[in-house]
Amino acid sequence: MTGPRITPLVASLPATVPFVGPDAHMRASGRPFRARLGANESVFGPSPRAIEAMERAARDVWVYGDSESHALRAALAAHHGVPMANIAIGEGIDGLLGLLVRIMIAPGDAVVTSDGAYPTFNYHVTGFGGVLHKVPYRDDREDPAALAERTAELGAKLVYLSNPDNPMGSWHSARVVTGLLDALPEDTLLLLDEAYIDFAPEGTAPAIDPDDPRVIRMRTFSKAYGLAGVRVGYAIGASPLIALFDRIRNHFGMTLTGQAGALAALADQDWLAQVCAQVSDAHDRIAAIAEAQGAFALPSATNFTAIDCGGDGALARKVLEGLMARDVFVRMPGVAPLDRCIRVSAGRPEDLDIFAEAFAEALAEARG
Amino acid sequence: MTGPRITPLVASLPATVPFVGPDAHMRASGRPFRARLGANESVFGPSPRAIEAMERAARDVWVYGDSESHALRAALAAHHGVPMANIAIGEGIDGLLGLLVRIMIAPGDAVVTSDGAYPTFNYHVTGFGGVLHKVPYRDDREDPAALAERTAELGAKLVYLSNPDNPMGSWHSARVVTGLLDALPEDTLLLLDEAYIDFAPEGTAPAIDPDDPRVIRMRTFSKAYGLAGVRVGYAIGASPLIALFDRIRNHFGMTLTGQAGALAALADQDWLAQVCAQVSDAHDRIAAIAEAQGAFALPSATNFTAIDCGGDGALARKVLEGLMARDVFVRMPGVAPLDRCIRVSAGRPEDLDIFAEAFAEALAEARG
Repeated sequence: MTGPRITPLVASLPATVPFVGPDAHMRASGRPFRARLGANESVFGPSPRAIEAMERAARDVWVYGDSESHALRAALAAHHGVPMANIAIGEGIDGLLGLLVRIMIAPGDAVVTSDGAYPTFNYHVTGFGGVLHKVPYRDDREDPAALAERTAELGAKLVYLSNPDNPMGSWHSARVVTGLLDALPEDTLLLLDEAYIDFAPEGTAPAIDPDDPRVIRMRTFSKAYGLAGVRVGYAIGASPLIALFDRIRNHFGMTLTGQAGALAALADQDWLAQVCAQVSDAHDRIAAIAEAQGAFALPSATNFTAIDCGGDGALARKVLEGLMARDVFVRMPGVAPLDRCIRVSAGRPEDLDIFAEAFAEALAEARG
Repeated sequence: MTGPRITPLVASLPATVPFVGPDAHMRASGRPFRARLGANESVFGPSPRAIEAMERAARDVWVYGDSESHALRAALAAHHGVPMANIAIGEGIDGLLGLLVRIMIAPGDAVVTSDGAYPTFNYHVTGFGGVLHKVPYRDDREDPAALAERTAELGAKLVYLSNPDNPMGSWHSARVVTGLLDALPEDTLLLLDEAYIDFAPEGTAPAIDPDDPRVIRMRTFSKAYGLAGVRVGYAIGASPLIALFDRIRNHFGMTLTGQAGALAALADQDWLAQVCAQVSDAHDRIAAIAEAQGAFALPSATNFTAIDCGGDGALARKVLEGLMARDVFVRMPGVAPLDRCIRVSAGRPEDLDIFAEAFAEALAEARG
């Protein structure tokens, strides 16, 4: 039997995944995590109002969710002071990244990002046949000047910037981001991934005209809002671009539960502020834990902290393995020199107690 | 400003959607539906065990759902007696249709379906640049002989059959489906959409070797299981084809809530049987309602009934408009001669009381 004829593009794709999920790690070890600090989830949970809304939704799930996510888009439009026509909803930023790449990238098209930046974006670019061009980080931050230069050289259609950054937790001021925008060729689209913006200091999120055709911003309910498990992200961009999502997306793909949860979560900004305060406390604690072992924590505008273990990638890898062996879930950057660090999500005090002990042991072991 | 450079393919796509959602209809009228019988949702709801599981999940949604949907795939594998490697999970059949088309169809590739069959499949084929070739229904059923003939003529990669059928509710025996499979070119893939199979009589679902590379079957928790609002579908196919979904899908796209709900729903087969009994009662009632007005109901192996209004498409369209004006949500087939019918989802007795009155009025009005 010959089997189905798949496209040459899909046949060429590697059988790798952007991330091995926490559940897969637990299945491999046969044990639950004692502290789950690897996926930048919010262990502080979502607003109790969001939980209530999702509990109520559980009885109503015989109906499809609104295919236009109208109530949620209207609330987001009001929240951001932009028209609804400038907002697209998707199954997390991951889902929106796939759609945006599909809208823009044909086989052979050049795309620019940073070496070590978000793997799932790269996965989608590769998946649609795009050619990734990567510029190095500079001083543990994505490098706007290098991104602009490489983009201009290539005439690239699309350039990716995460601000604040994942996996380092670093960030640029709003002024630097708008400077990048002005430095890019006029027909290049800046994909500004703001998954972690809720944790960033004032002055990080630029004021951008929502109808500026040069940029699309993406945000999520998976991080500060604590709703990773119901998959809700959104994009803010010029309405002609936003309208294109409707030509290709899975129209009934947004769950009733997720829409209800996100709507309630958005309305509870007090909860968000409280989570951000807890994350700030966690940063301080993680920094102290690192310092106590002669390592150090990088500044962070996110809900995670990169800890420089004080050696190279091999040392950090050993520390990570030691933590995982102790059922403490963390991750680490994929490329040098970022990979001298491990990446630890903000935890509750009890999570960080477990981390502190395991980190001390793992680091001592790794140092031999 | 020039704006972003989108692909010629996406630029060529029409700005239409496969279905206007029920919520959009309600926003347009400004009133809620009195009976919601248009989207083949299960008004009988999901298993109470599924509701409980989703209520519990509401507290846990700060974590991402398992990116491998391992527990659900394992349960489905046991349920169907096939290996896990033969099962892919997706955001409803709609999501899986998009992925399968992406795996197989490059611009210009021929795809065969029936004229009047599921629009969302067509939407995805068009979305990836495929060229649809449609054969007519025969006696209100998809026509396997015509599908096989057209597929062979074209050397088409992919052919779609829904069994039982939507929008007519008709069906073929398992023997006819396997006959189609044997009549197709060996390197054509049969996409067998079994969204409604849970309602069909014994002998409708063919026994197919899960490793048969000539066919992929798709099923859903949105219909008989009553979980439309959490988006869970699955495909059963040969493991090399199933593995390709992992190269392109949104790996963290399945919600925690949906996975928990589907797992609990699958375990409650008694609930499923009870829903099917209620659907059977609804068919009888809808047939009686139609007959009382001099119309008649077509036989159905689904959770909806096509009612032949006794005229042409224009008459049925008036009946549909009359029902919608009375806040009774139904739909109708899109092409002649199927469009002499309206399509009414199975309802509870109280839903069908409302339908009965509105249908009598709408039909009388339409007849003038």
